[in-house]
Amino acid sequence: MTRSLVRISELAHQAGVSIPTLKYYIREGLLPAGTAVAPNRADYGDDHVNRLRLIRTLREIGGLDIGRIKRIVSAIEDDSLSRHELFGVVERARAADVAEPASSETAASRREVDRFIEELGWHVRPDAAGRQEVANALVALRRLGRDYDADIFRPYAEAADRMAAREVRSIATAEPHSVAVERMVVGTVVFGAVFDALRRLAHEHHSSGSD
Amino acid sequence: MTRSLVRISELAHQAGVSIPTLKYYIREGLLPAGTAVAPNRADYGDDHVNRLRLIRTLREIGGLDIGRIKRIVSAIEDDSLSRHELFGVVERARAADVAEPASSETAASRREVDRFIEELGWHVRPDAAGRQEVANALVALRRLGRDYDADIFRPYAEAADRMAAREVRSIATAEPHSVAVERMVVGTVVFGAVFDALRRLAHEHHSSGSD
Repeated sequence: MTRSLVRISELAHQAGVSIPTLKYYIREGLLPAGTAVAPNRADYGDDHVNRLRLIRTLREIGGLDIGRIKRIVSAIEDDSLSRHELFGVVERARAADVAEPASSETAASRREVDRFIEELGWHVRPDAAGRQEVANALVALRRLGRDYDADIFRPYAEAADRMAAREVRSIATAEPHSVAVERMVVGTVVFGAVFDALRRLAHEHHSSGSD
Repeated sequence: MTRSLVRISELAHQAGVSIPTLKYYIREGLLPAGTAVAPNRADYGDDHVNRLRLIRTLREIGGLDIGRIKRIVSAIEDDSLSRHELFGVVERARAADVAEPASSETAASRREVDRFIEELGWHVRPDAAGRQEVANALVALRRLGRDYDADIFRPYAEAADRMAAREVRSIATAEPHSVAVERMVVGTVVFGAVFDALRRLAHEHHSSGSD
């Protein structure tokens, strides 16, 4: 990696973003300020280019807004977080916006989902956002007249388990922390989007000739 | 299924939405008008309750906006569509918002992804939105310095293929069309959201004890 510094216009060009956007990211704390080389001039290095590409990926592929990206970037910069903790932050930042209002129906579903996750033997925070998302999905299915219990999600949990095990393994422990966390974040977001797109395409494929 | 009719206030209560929201859905064509029983009064049946629950699920669990929900609802109502065509509409309605601006880089990746899908033997429309989403993901990964080709997505395609095959099979051909299409739409959206949540939880689980 070269250590050459570039001016803000060149950084914008290299990263494919506008200068106002760049300045906005710096103000918002998503991007560190450049190195001051003159009273009105700062220069930027490869770390800035890489960070900008990461932000762009989270925004364009992951569909995340600036607030969520900021939480992820702060976690990446926090060397004190373990990978487990970082995955927790990313999990939360990618959570669905819409929370089901509390009701006895959702509370019961949530307990069922918590039990289901315990049966899977998964080690995840009690307040992980995904637990409530799965519980909300169960409530929605029942409202639509499907008499399901959480076990209907077992094939999905097994597929998710296999996929995540492979993905976490692929982050070699030998890598420096900063590289590993960037890979984790990118992997979670980009491969998640890819899987969702491929599943939709596979539905289209498997339904051909079905009627 | 009872055929009793209810007033708009009771419909709103049963479906868990406000009366203004109900009227908005009727104006937007998401919900058929009620049966006129007096000059200033229309009554509503079970079909309305079911449709409202479907809309709510697409909005709250799928995170879809009204425009996208409208496209899906229109397709559900169109008896002339085959299931394959309906999956195509749903595929498109669930597509990511952000399109990568055309460039030689994205065009080359798109050709690669098209070839990859052909190799999988998948029968999907040439203009399926998911193709471009996968291509955009490949471009993003390369920008971040990963020297990947489309084959990196093969484990994801295989998992999506297994999942979709099971899901499409579960829509028994014996069911009436209207039930089958509702199941397809709900299944795609709700189980997609569940899988994404479970994959995030599984990441957190598999990274515990990794450092």
